[in-house]
Amino acid sequence: MNAIIVKPPREEWSQLMQRPRIDAQNLEETILEIINTVKQQGDEAVKNYSLKFHGFAPDNLWVTPQEIADSSKTINKYLKKAILLAKKNIEKFHGQQVEKIKKIATSPGVVCWRKSVPVEKIGLYIPGGSAPLFSTLLMLAIPAKIAGCKNIMVTTPANKSGNVDPAVLFVANILGIKNVYKGGGAQAIAAMAYGTQTVDKVDKIFGPGNQYVTCAKKLVNMDGVAIDMLAGPSELAVYADNTCIPAFVAADLLSQAEHGADSQVVLVASNETIIKNVVNEIHRQLPSLPRKDIIEQSFLNRRFIVINKKEEAFDFLNEYAPEHLIIASQKAEQLSAFVKNAGSVFLGNLSPESAGDYASGTNHSLPTNGTAKTYSGVSVDSFVKKITFQKIIQKGINNIGPAIELMASAERLDAHKNAVTIRLKKK
Amino acid sequence: MNAIIVKPPREEWSQLMQRPRIDAQNLEETILEIINTVKQQGDEAVKNYSLKFHGFAPDNLWVTPQEIADSSKTINKYLKKAILLAKKNIEKFHGQQVEKIKKIATSPGVVCWRKSVPVEKIGLYIPGGSAPLFSTLLMLAIPAKIAGCKNIMVTTPANKSGNVDPAVLFVANILGIKNVYKGGGAQAIAAMAYGTQTVDKVDKIFGPGNQYVTCAKKLVNMDGVAIDMLAGPSELAVYADNTCIPAFVAADLLSQAEHGADSQVVLVASNETIIKNVVNEIHRQLPSLPRKDIIEQSFLNRRFIVINKKEEAFDFLNEYAPEHLIIASQKAEQLSAFVKNAGSVFLGNLSPESAGDYASGTNHSLPTNGTAKTYSGVSVDSFVKKITFQKIIQKGINNIGPAIELMASAERLDAHKNAVTIRLKKK
Repeated sequence: MNAIIVKPPREEWSQLMQRPRIDAQNLEETILEIINTVKQQGDEAVKNYSLKFHGFAPDNLWVTPQEIADSSKTINKYLKKAILLAKKNIEKFHGQQVEKIKKIATSPGVVCWRKSVPVEKIGLYIPGGSAPLFSTLLMLAIPAKIAGCKNIMVTTPANKSGNVDPAVLFVANILGIKNVYKGGGAQAIAAMAYGTQTVDKVDKIFGPGNQYVTCAKKLVNMDGVAIDMLAGPSELAVYADNTCIPAFVAADLLSQAEHGADSQVVLVASNETIIKNVVNEIHRQLPSLPRKDIIEQSFLNRRFIVINKKEEAFDFLNEYAPEHLIIASQKAEQLSAFVKNAGSVFLGNLSPESAGDYASGTNHSLPTNGTAKTYSGVSVDSFVKKITFQKIIQKGINNIGPAIELMASAERLDAHKNAVTIRLKKK
Repeated sequence: MNAIIVKPPREEWSQLMQRPRIDAQNLEETILEIINTVKQQGDEAVKNYSLKFHGFAPDNLWVTPQEIADSSKTINKYLKKAILLAKKNIEKFHGQQVEKIKKIATSPGVVCWRKSVPVEKIGLYIPGGSAPLFSTLLMLAIPAKIAGCKNIMVTTPANKSGNVDPAVLFVANILGIKNVYKGGGAQAIAAMAYGTQTVDKVDKIFGPGNQYVTCAKKLVNMDGVAIDMLAGPSELAVYADNTCIPAFVAADLLSQAEHGADSQVVLVASNETIIKNVVNEIHRQLPSLPRKDIIEQSFLNRRFIVINKKEEAFDFLNEYAPEHLIIASQKAEQLSAFVKNAGSVFLGNLSPESAGDYASGTNHSLPTNGTAKTYSGVSVDSFVKKITFQKIIQKGINNIGPAIELMASAERLDAHKNAVTIRLKKK
């Protein structure tokens, strides 16, 4: 599987597109037990599981205002400036996603519109684990605030000394989020889904996580709690033609692979030489990377494929439906017209995927595992319901009423018809 | 439960909001068997199940162009005109939901945008059963076409003579839908989810249905096929104050109740007299309605509640989060500012819910069972993915690159940092 695959026939595509398998079957029982225990015992259960799985049980799950304020002291000023730049760009991009109300007279006397109304209570899960993902808090809380959500809470694991990552708290602070709770894993998801003595029950849960978190999100979702999506391992596909810069392509593939052993990278190139040059660059860059071992494991899932014709290459990429797609070509903007399925697309040689992860302004919470065929990434839309309204006056019901009567009657719903008849002023 | 409930204390609200229970637990095994049989045997299984459950096995699942064309002959011209008016209004309202591309320079040299791209293959399920719901085909196919979906297919049961309802075919005809298949129930959902010899596998399945259809949608969704939503029994809540017209409120409650024995109607009025007047009107109108028996059964689930203060009344209604909400008041537009959770809202005494079912222009596929707290009804959004794009030039990567390097480094993702470093032209 790790050789260069040259011009694979279409009947072999689906096999090439298989994602690394995750065996989550026998997790459900364990996770369901955690969820039920949190449901019954509340805070106490969250603390016990935190001690068991993360080595620390906080006295109080709630992070105090003092702890949040103190976070500012431990972050250096350059990182603060960087975070503020990312915040500005994310705000600028997502600010454009707010839908204004447009009132539409569909018939004379009939006015319809839709209004975006924020989801009332939002819970954000921010993983701690191997890397504290403060960038994810920016990506989730900024669109939530733009959507108008008043009630945003965060759960995130504390480390063994009982502290939450200061960068996560710094982001919470600049975004005015007051409710941050120490708790990770399935127990944190359960706490937000059902509430505890300290943690308020939320309407919708957002955020990535390991397989335990994902399984917990799946189970609470089946029980009626809304979630953003079920995030699978991260993926990157790169399309490269002769105008790509192999060293850049190599760096992008390596950056994706460092996420985890189950991450997947796919390179579709218009000829074999490109791939050989990229592979040489990978060998040159890899040795100095701290996450070398993870990358090597992840690279077992890599696919390096030659497809000469660009139309066919994009057929392949659309069928794969990657979370991230880089078009490494000087003609990237032209080629982007071929994109039918992807989470986020990076155009040209100077648009690395890591720009979207942090600071270009687009969201990094994206559909994985082929779900980009039907799902979008997180946006302001994810934090609102779009409620439709209609206001009909006498002229309007006179105009459309007879049509409603006929259609209701044809569907054998006479009480529906009657609700109109009774309102029609017979002339 | 069926008396008038006057000023219920808040701690009793959650009990008053309970939806009629549906016991779907032991359906799953049966439905899973149907799905697996269709997966293995394809068309043959769909035919066998159609014979078993609907009393007819078509020779060919595909409805011929002749059958579609012939439908026009059996529909009277007034109903045709009514359908065309509804089509025009639905098109007008949903046409405004198309999002135009806005390119945003988040930082100098960094341009981001999002593009709505249609889901490629759409399957629409149109129930036949007790009433042929041609209006649902309008409500699903029109936004799909506006979204740009090229590949729209429909499954709908045939009657015992092997014919599909002519009004459904008439709507398919005027919308240019060429692929209509004879098949109802769980077997139709399975055919669209996995494909058969005749039926193409789709990416996303839409449409209402009975508990078998809903269970099948749930199971194929758990297996990775996207769906619109899991529709529960239909619901209507009415807020009525002294300026309501009790006869109209009664007609609306009756229209909702005729959907099925498991439908629910809730009336929240600002005083008891209103409810008494409405009840009198119900007794007057009910006897002449053909679906009297269904209505009486459904009325066992009704809730007639007095809450004097309007703020508190809307607190209750928001917590209930009804699929449909009528504000029966001359001050409806003012009061609509209180609405936080609802599928579709009908303002004033001349806006019956049945207007939204057929012809006002809004969509009638709406979130039920309290899911209006987090979900929206079907719209053009439901048929697209919003893919984000970014294009960065040298000036742009020079601008945001250092911030990305710092943030990636703080998250201990050095390969992410390196993908930027390699692109930065050091001055």
